[in-house]
Amino acid sequence: MAMAAEKESTSEVDLESALLPSSSVESLPLLAHSTRSRQHSHLRSLRRSASNTTSQIAIVGSDPAPSRASTTSPSSSRSLATAVGNFRLIENEEFLQQDWRSRGRAHILRYVVLKWTLCFLLGALAGAAGFLTNLAIENIAGVKFVVTSNMMLADRHLWAFGVFAASNFVLTMFAAVITAFFAPAAAGSGIPEVKAYLNGVDAPEIFSPRTLVVKVVGCIAAVSSSLHVGKAGPLVHTGACIASILGQGGSRKYRLTCKWLRYFKNDRDRRDLVTCGSAAGVAAAFRAPVGGVLFALEAVSSWWRSALLWRAFFTTAVVAVVLRALIDICHRGKCGLFGKGGLIMFDVTSDTIAYHLPDLPPVIILGIGGGILGSFYNFFLEKVLRAYNLINEKGYGYKLLLAATISICTSCCIFGLPWLASCSPCPTGISEACPSIGRSGNFKKFQCPPDHYNDLASLLFNTNDDTIRNLFSAGLIIYGIAAPSGLFIPVILTGATYGRLVGMLMGSRSTLDHSLFAVLGSASLLGGSMRMTVSVCVILLELTNNLLLLPLVMLVLLISKTVADALNANIYDLIVKLKGFPYLETHAEPYMRQLTVSDVVTGPLLMFNGIEKVGNIVHVLKTTGHHGFPVVDEPPFSDSSVLYGLILRAHLLILLKKRVFLPSRSLFGIDVSKQFSADDFAKRGSGKHDDIEDIKLTAEDMEMFIDLHPFTNTSPYTVVETMSLAKAVILFREVGLRHLLVVPKSSSRAPIVGILTRHDFMPEHILGLHPSLLKSRWKRLRFGKTSLNKVFCDLC
Amino acid sequence: MAMAAEKESTSEVDLESALLPSSSVESLPLLAHSTRSRQHSHLRSLRRSASNTTSQIAIVGSDPAPSRASTTSPSSSRSLATAVGNFRLIENEEFLQQDWRSRGRAHILRYVVLKWTLCFLLGALAGAAGFLTNLAIENIAGVKFVVTSNMMLADRHLWAFGVFAASNFVLTMFAAVITAFFAPAAAGSGIPEVKAYLNGVDAPEIFSPRTLVVKVVGCIAAVSSSLHVGKAGPLVHTGACIASILGQGGSRKYRLTCKWLRYFKNDRDRRDLVTCGSAAGVAAAFRAPVGGVLFALEAVSSWWRSALLWRAFFTTAVVAVVLRALIDICHRGKCGLFGKGGLIMFDVTSDTIAYHLPDLPPVIILGIGGGILGSFYNFFLEKVLRAYNLINEKGYGYKLLLAATISICTSCCIFGLPWLASCSPCPTGISEACPSIGRSGNFKKFQCPPDHYNDLASLLFNTNDDTIRNLFSAGLIIYGIAAPSGLFIPVILTGATYGRLVGMLMGSRSTLDHSLFAVLGSASLLGGSMRMTVSVCVILLELTNNLLLLPLVMLVLLISKTVADALNANIYDLIVKLKGFPYLETHAEPYMRQLTVSDVVTGPLLMFNGIEKVGNIVHVLKTTGHHGFPVVDEPPFSDSSVLYGLILRAHLLILLKKRVFLPSRSLFGIDVSKQFSADDFAKRGSGKHDDIEDIKLTAEDMEMFIDLHPFTNTSPYTVVETMSLAKAVILFREVGLRHLLVVPKSSSRAPIVGILTRHDFMPEHILGLHPSLLKSRWKRLRFGKTSLNKVFCDLC
Repeated sequence: MAMAAEKESTSEVDLESALLPSSSVESLPLLAHSTRSRQHSHLRSLRRSASNTTSQIAIVGSDPAPSRASTTSPSSSRSLATAVGNFRLIENEEFLQQDWRSRGRAHILRYVVLKWTLCFLLGALAGAAGFLTNLAIENIAGVKFVVTSNMMLADRHLWAFGVFAASNFVLTMFAAVITAFFAPAAAGSGIPEVKAYLNGVDAPEIFSPRTLVVKVVGCIAAVSSSLHVGKAGPLVHTGACIASILGQGGSRKYRLTCKWLRYFKNDRDRRDLVTCGSAAGVAAAFRAPVGGVLFALEAVSSWWRSALLWRAFFTTAVVAVVLRALIDICHRGKCGLFGKGGLIMFDVTSDTIAYHLPDLPPVIILGIGGGILGSFYNFFLEKVLRAYNLINEKGYGYKLLLAATISICTSCCIFGLPWLASCSPCPTGISEACPSIGRSGNFKKFQCPPDHYNDLASLLFNTNDDTIRNLFSAGLIIYGIAAPSGLFIPVILTGATYGRLVGMLMGSRSTLDHSLFAVLGSASLLGGSMRMTVSVCVILLELTNNLLLLPLVMLVLLISKTVADALNANIYDLIVKLKGFPYLETHAEPYMRQLTVSDVVTGPLLMFNGIEKVGNIVHVLKTTGHHGFPVVDEPPFSDSSVLYGLILRAHLLILLKKRVFLPSRSLFGIDVSKQFSADDFAKRGSGKHDDIEDIKLTAEDMEMFIDLHPFTNTSPYTVVETMSLAKAVILFREVGLRHLLVVPKSSSRAPIVGILTRHDFMPEHILGLHPSLLKSRWKRLRFGKTSLNKVFCDLC
Repeated sequence: MAMAAEKESTSEVDLESALLPSSSVESLPLLAHSTRSRQHSHLRSLRRSASNTTSQIAIVGSDPAPSRASTTSPSSSRSLATAVGNFRLIENEEFLQQDWRSRGRAHILRYVVLKWTLCFLLGALAGAAGFLTNLAIENIAGVKFVVTSNMMLADRHLWAFGVFAASNFVLTMFAAVITAFFAPAAAGSGIPEVKAYLNGVDAPEIFSPRTLVVKVVGCIAAVSSSLHVGKAGPLVHTGACIASILGQGGSRKYRLTCKWLRYFKNDRDRRDLVTCGSAAGVAAAFRAPVGGVLFALEAVSSWWRSALLWRAFFTTAVVAVVLRALIDICHRGKCGLFGKGGLIMFDVTSDTIAYHLPDLPPVIILGIGGGILGSFYNFFLEKVLRAYNLINEKGYGYKLLLAATISICTSCCIFGLPWLASCSPCPTGISEACPSIGRSGNFKKFQCPPDHYNDLASLLFNTNDDTIRNLFSAGLIIYGIAAPSGLFIPVILTGATYGRLVGMLMGSRSTLDHSLFAVLGSASLLGGSMRMTVSVCVILLELTNNLLLLPLVMLVLLISKTVADALNANIYDLIVKLKGFPYLETHAEPYMRQLTVSDVVTGPLLMFNGIEKVGNIVHVLKTTGHHGFPVVDEPPFSDSSVLYGLILRAHLLILLKKRVFLPSRSLFGIDVSKQFSADDFAKRGSGKHDDIEDIKLTAEDMEMFIDLHPFTNTSPYTVVETMSLAKAVILFREVGLRHLLVVPKSSSRAPIVGILTRHDFMPEHILGLHPSLLKSRWKRLRFGKTSLNKVFCDLC
């Protein structure tokens, strides 16, 4: 169900790009009162044409805002427009310069203490969530397997299948129903959403409390129902959710908010917390604190600061300690079927690993194979997701039908496959009962005669993460259905199977242990599909608790990533692209050097005067979805026409709500510091967005004026219109901007040419405006059959 | 001798800041031909006054360039001015837009292959250098200890002391002499220099081949001479040197350059290689590949890209494999006294570590103590370095005298201390000979009767890194002397001693092992002095090969770093500051929000016309040391006065050298693409700098013109003069700029207000210009007695 959230998100994303910038080098005049209605229709037509010239994937949300706003769509879907985050503290003339550092010592101390407390709470909650998930899965699925196995022992095969398939069906449908009806944003892994958020794309509802609950419950149900899905991805999403909710001070709806938390109501602190949350999620899934930090650094985050490393590390340390404490409790036997399992998968500590030069060729072959398989995995996953997406779009009925079909197929496969396997006699001299009776064990009798066990059944009828239970082909079919599901653990399991297979094929030609081959197989497949290196390496080392594996794991990862990068993109990037998030890449595309910023600004430019009529503001806000507007001072308020700054939509809405209006266009107004406090302008949580439609103003109000000066960010980042697009995109990306103002080169013109937003830097948008670039050799490099260029960009 | 290099570097650093920007809001007119001599004296007086208003530490190099250039100083010290790197590919109209991506496929492939080959070579060479260093130290010091021990066995105590002290003296003096006379830049740890380079400060000679050789040889001699110094820092510097030399294509002097390497002759690729090199250095020192990458990320680099993680990881993987292979060879007994030692220090693998809640209080106490000790260590190290600096400044004689004094003191200490220790009877039932006879062993007889050994002597008379051989007070006195010396390993050893001491004091009150206390003690002291978290943690885990330690090590690190951060700054920052490098911090200081960029631009602004007279260019280049000049088009070449772009000093020198002059001020000139190729403008290696004094032009040439347009970077980053300084510094730092042009807000004025460089953002410069800020509350926060604010900035 990875794509189920797409429709919701795409229909609501930021309307900025379709409208704000002006394509002509000359800027349009300020909105004139008399031309309001003409302007309105003009805007709509322009918006349409803008969305036509560019790819539908890039310019999500081409649905015109006015028509939507007038429909009776539920307020939640209307107000939760996807915002593109601005990860800098905003500096307004008056208020928002007062960030915490300019406050007194007590404030600073409070901020710091609170920040670390939040990290501690985040670690503790993520650890508890990870433990709870494991505990529930082990118990629910454990009971299911015990009952089934007991029936098989009693030779009641048909009954066993019935119970097995029915329980799987119920669990799958439960997960699918709660996901589809209560929180569509909880579907899928969640890592692509978190990655997009940290890049600056805030999809609706992804971090709401409802999503959190559905994610945890749905993940438990989906994993328990024997679907080939993992819990790592959902745990990352869970960690990010917890972080976001903590930062917002709990949900305001449920009165959980706290006054102190006002310091954290801005995009930057929220982003930092979410980064720590995703690290905590990985740490909770694998009990790998260092691996979690590296995962957040390598795979998820788009900006990284040294100080964040330190905070993320603290969070994952707390996760590790909490998990350890909870597992210590379970060792006393109070956790039902949750034994030692669930958190450490492979255990190759006991062996001392020795390897020599002749062992390298099989390892290299394993790496190459893993790379190829990994990229095939990504390729097929994308195809499957596209197909599922088509099905899911048709409505709830189809979503549930799909989930039901997959559940039944999975049950049949898992129950059917062991019949094909031969029975093995029980090994002698072990303490464990064989065949296992009564509880989940490692030797399943299945259909075999007494004193024999079915090894395939032992793999498939087990929940423990240390059993490699699935064949390669199973994993990618299930990811797309409407339930929280991860990719990480299936890939590890599949890789381990693959590695063991290669190890068996090598036979006596290699002195390496089969369990070592399994670890290396996992590494190669992870490298091939996820394309992470350091984090996968560290996670595997922390899982196996053996550092001597390091050089071999590194070698395999390097080979498989290189091979796979030559074939296609990494799995999360594919999903991010498929979901239509306007993800901003680190590097500038080569053709961007050919263009200047003025080549990509499109559409009419909307501006406000320093002292603007209320009616104008309301009209502009109603007819557009932009998040920022330039403020220009004209004579007689300045010598010439001068760019004063940038004002945000959110702040305009607050001004309108507060009704601090001036009767006339004069500079001598009201002392704003008495009317507003900095907290009024703090970033709201995701559940609370103002909407222009909710603000009722009288006709009298409409004729009054607002002095925008005190609320304007007077030093927005600007670029000259002749700057190359490549440089602008680097500025935009590195500084983490949301709006970039384009100013004219010549001083004789209007003070602003246009505004660039994230959407203007999307390749689809640029190539839509300049189709000739497609024909040039850049196209061959970028859109060619091979992704060779991708490799180079990635590696450079 | 950490400070020995300071004089050389400070006298040569970038002259930009003292001159370029204009303090008046109005820009000065272009250089007029007639006012040349007046302007000259004007410039000199201004330069002097500018350097008076600002701190001497920040504005290094206030020495006027013209007077220097006319002296007969050796060309090496003149031409190797510290350059501040510009880590973006430069885009000129004509040539430098042709970076590798716009070249053909063959070029791209060559670039990528070469890049990975360079990383491979870097890893292999760094691994070999690390191994060589270890091997040499083990053998040189080993022979010394064997001879001394044998003499002690024969009761010839005075002879033993003589041989011991003499060999230490010779080794120390050798290291000091080669460092002082051949490569002063090789003194000290090298990590601060690498850190400053990666921040954009290119000190002279730090990466020259001569520095590399002296670093390796000097480090071997210094460590062998029983000084309390480590090899980690020198290895990091060695790795960075190798990287830089590889990227430059070897030294051009020795004809080692390669044509393919022209792709790497730019700051960005060089920086990436140096980052990988520093990671390789740490990996070679500790055989910790993951730790090396994290060290580079956390402690050294200022910019980081995801792709770099992957390359650094590859490099350290190669280091690990090379080291393993070389050690395998040594295990066959071909390496003299180099046994198993040198690369793994602690070995607590064999024990299974169990710890419970009651073990936490001692661990927390250990962490707090480590934090306090670590910050004291930093405090005293800074004082000692300042004192040494005063001595070293007096000349070579004093440098060597200092080294000699310290060597003799150290010999006396090491030889004297064991006499104070009591003798222990030899343990029974061990395979090793006791007392050790003939070769370096773990049981030193020293002055003890037969069948007894002196445990303090066993610690002190050993080279193996697994012996904890020094007391706390010893480490910080030696770092400052004129020899390559690291801080990392002394801190680990001292910390281990401290930890064991705490463990012994705890006695039976803690169930934890003493070796575990030693590891935690090292961690706490590292956290307290280096202030690294994740990398120290991973390095210690890789050293001890035991992941179960993780939660405890994390806890100790977190506590000690927090405690120490509250007291003072981290050790590398202190040294960077002491050396006077203009290091750019990640965060903007609070008072920067109070200022606009126009508040910090100072001095007259020098500009060129689009078509400029040769004489003017020569004059400006001779009288200033700026690295960049704005190019302005005036009527009749444009409608109004327009900023065309920025031209670099290096490119102007190339233009003058090539003598592509125009007879008159006209736009119809020569087809430049025939006269120049992109390679002409590639960044030279550190050994090859053009100098304006080397270019001889006739009086006729001086009256001709150059068309600067094709060589100008037409889209430099610009900010409006009203932008807050805090935002400008974020832009400058995040995008990695070298020059930031300030443009006027009003369109009616001249097109450029000033240029900001790194020096303009230094707190000392800003506070020098605006002393009132010192009196405001910002001052209390920043310059107060406690560094509480530092903690907050660091953690936020």
